Amino acid sequence: MIRSLLTTDNSINSTESLRQWIEQRNRDVQVDVELIPFEKMEGWHIDDDGSLHHDSGKFFSIQGIHVETDYGSISAWDQPIICQPEIGYLGIITKEIDGMLYFLMQSKIEPGNVNCVQISPTIQATKSNYSRIHKGKKPAYLDYFLNVKPENILLDQLQSEQGARFLRKRNRNIIIKVDDEVEVLPDFRWMTLGQIKSFMHENNRVNMDTRTVLSGIDYCDYLTPLTDLSGMSPFGRDMMKSAHTIEGLHSMKQILSWLSGLKSRYDLSVSSKPIDELLGWHRTACEIANDEGRFFRIVGVKVSISNREVTSWCQPLVQPLQQGLCAFIIRKIDGIYHFLVQAKLECGNYDVMELAPTVQCLTGNVYDVKPELRPPFVEYVLNVPKEQIRYDVLQSEEGGRFFREQNRNMIVEVGEDFTQEVPEHYKWMTLRQINHFLMFNNYLNIQARSILSAIKYI
Amino acid sequence: MIRSLLTTDNSINSTESLRQWIEQRNRDVQVDVELIPFEKMEGWHIDDDGSLHHDSGKFFSIQGIHVETDYGSISAWDQPIICQPEIGYLGIITKEIDGMLYFLMQSKIEPGNVNCVQISPTIQATKSNYSRIHKGKKPAYLDYFLNVKPENILLDQLQSEQGARFLRKRNRNIIIKVDDEVEVLPDFRWMTLGQIKSFMHENNRVNMDTRTVLSGIDYCDYLTPLTDLSGMSPFGRDMMKSAHTIEGLHSMKQILSWLSGLKSRYDLSVSSKPIDELLGWHRTACEIANDEGRFFRIVGVKVSISNREVTSWCQPLVQPLQQGLCAFIIRKIDGIYHFLVQAKLECGNYDVMELAPTVQCLTGNVYDVKPELRPPFVEYVLNVPKEQIRYDVLQSEEGGRFFREQNRNMIVEVGEDFTQEVPEHYKWMTLRQINHFLMFNNYLNIQARSILSAIKYI
Repeated sequence: MIRSLLTTDNSINSTESLRQWIEQRNRDVQVDVELIPFEKMEGWHIDDDGSLHHDSGKFFSIQGIHVETDYGSISAWDQPIICQPEIGYLGIITKEIDGMLYFLMQSKIEPGNVNCVQISPTIQATKSNYSRIHKGKKPAYLDYFLNVKPENILLDQLQSEQGARFLRKRNRNIIIKVDDEVEVLPDFRWMTLGQIKSFMHENNRVNMDTRTVLSGIDYCDYLTPLTDLSGMSPFGRDMMKSAHTIEGLHSMKQILSWLSGLKSRYDLSVSSKPIDELLGWHRTACEIANDEGRFFRIVGVKVSISNREVTSWCQPLVQPLQQGLCAFIIRKIDGIYHFLVQAKLECGNYDVMELAPTVQCLTGNVYDVKPELRPPFVEYVLNVPKEQIRYDVLQSEEGGRFFREQNRNMIVEVGEDFTQEVPEHYKWMTLRQINHFLMFNNYLNIQARSILSAIKYI
Repeated sequence: MIRSLLTTDNSINSTESLRQWIEQRNRDVQVDVELIPFEKMEGWHIDDDGSLHHDSGKFFSIQGIHVETDYGSISAWDQPIICQPEIGYLGIITKEIDGMLYFLMQSKIEPGNVNCVQISPTIQATKSNYSRIHKGKKPAYLDYFLNVKPENILLDQLQSEQGARFLRKRNRNIIIKVDDEVEVLPDFRWMTLGQIKSFMHENNRVNMDTRTVLSGIDYCDYLTPLTDLSGMSPFGRDMMKSAHTIEGLHSMKQILSWLSGLKSRYDLSVSSKPIDELLGWHRTACEIANDEGRFFRIVGVKVSISNREVTSWCQPLVQPLQQGLCAFIIRKIDGIYHFLVQAKLECGNYDVMELAPTVQCLTGNVYDVKPELRPPFVEYVLNVPKEQIRYDVLQSEEGGRFFREQNRNMIVEVGEDFTQEVPEHYKWMTLRQINHFLMFNNYLNIQARSILSAIKYI
């Protein structure tokens, strides 16, 4: 694992050949996404209350909710949300070849992708998908996951998706090791972890599902005193030190207590409400949209793609109407990197609050609101000198549900002289503490995991 | 903490004087619980759909649900359930006196208690309770919890209540250490942890809330190489060894993976349904009950008690109609005690499945069902030779919601020759592994925690 993390000169596929392969696939493939009225979405129907459902009753649906909470400045609102109660697979096959761990990655097209093809896990399958509700082909490699022996599972976590867009949605993030020969199908390539990480430093190259699965790897599990770390950068070395430090500025016990307190203090109540009665939203033949044109809208599309399980289908997509920013502020405390983690309540969260990046917001309207109502640290991050920026890349959200959504992901380092006050729902944590939360379910939100997955050690 | 665990000769209050104090309080206090029609419950009302609500809209309510799941032999059913979305406090104040940690325990009367007065945490307060929705007095000692400094919090966890009776209910279990003088009010006494544990070995002496709070203590946190363990029994020594062993028969990673797999495989869907439309249930003026007289029934009561926050009030209570059995099977594997833990789906669970005792069932009808439909291990436990029984006590469920409910709690030790097959939703775990899950929310169910809290080390 560690060798793979520190290696980009893959003897099977060079980084350059992989990049060309993705770009070639992007040129070869014909993707057509056509906006259509909801009524024309084959296989879908509109319920009496305006909600959108797949005819099978499975897959996912778009429904309305009414939210009440005493967290934040808005105490009640309505919104549409994606409901997908089943837990899907996001799985990666790895294999040791000549003493190096390789990851079997897919160049996958999703209808909503900005750039069509992105580097994806070996398998992305909803329960409906692999039980073939929408009558596609059985996903390739599924049997490896269904038949894996416990000792060959490297990672296996239930993790959340966007709490503002999905109602309590989770996926099973899983990495397995295969000892047998694995056939490499045309859309697939072996990559080292170092290569995937380097692609994460290019805009929209690695899809969200890959980022969430890889974020869960705890390098502590793989390090021995004999591990060769000579290939690491100074930044990587410092990060690895943080990934080893369980006692940070606060103990795990103190952090858990802080989180118990916040979860107890804030109430979140979510109830169903007909789409057509949502305050501040309207439904037309072609969209479910906010009256002021904010946040996002739901559209219907007809997709035609040449190498997906189904070559042509209809579905709703969520189209963002504002740009987003997700940023972690990091800082050395007693020589160890700490991340400034936010406890954030979002309406679709499985457990009231999840741990989020220091800044997670829509940037479109930051300067439209009064300074005291702007999210903490957002102005700091937007105006930070370049030399403090450790990471700054545009990353896509899941192209199977979101239409061309990309968010700016950043890591910003501050010095000991950082004097901004830390509000009570923020805590400094080491990477080891964060990784410990990742082992358990529903602690780190997907925006946080997306940034964490991109930490490079070389 | 460890000294307190191993001490029963409390110099402030002897165990015998504490027992007499509880019994005296039981004699002194006048408790009157009268079954009344729902319509006569002052402060409560029946909604059009038959559900029962407090007039404030807070506190708790009795509502109907429809459950669908692919776990177990029954795929769909209706039932009434207690809804109490707010997170309450179950808190214990501790104080070091002459080098020993003492716990401030309350002799508390609850209307549903079998024996009126039981040993309870310093504070049991719902949010409605401490924000004084039902106009009682402010709970004693509340300010100590509201103003505690993070470094004085010994334990702070969100833990679930009965998943078959409560819809996603949780409490904040908290133990704090107070440095200032603490006034000991008439209903309160200082006890060592060892004393409380010894009371747990008497029927219905220690209430459910005390048991859940104490179950979360991780003794690992308090042990140093210099700790004096000479007072421990051989069984206690072996248990302490298990409480120190994080790598058991399975690693934490393997156990987490097993749980991710089970949570992904089984669907649980819970939706609201009017009480009056629940299949298999009926509502009369005085009860909401199962048509076949099984499980439990909801009744309305008028309570009059002399020393509670409110001296007289009305409320619904849940009355069990069948006896329950909760038992852990334990076994030494490579010299370390392992607990046979069950992953159990219950309709009100916060996260689909929680870790439960080896056996958790209603015993009334074990022999009414075909052998192949009986829960695993139940016959083994009911017929086990006496010398294998390490613990066997009747424990009460929470008397504020349940009317005279008691369940048999057992720990049964088996030898290396135990040959019963372990079904896939059971796993052997060390006490340290279980304690690690306890640190995080919603992993161990209340039945499991109740048994674990009773483990004695002397």
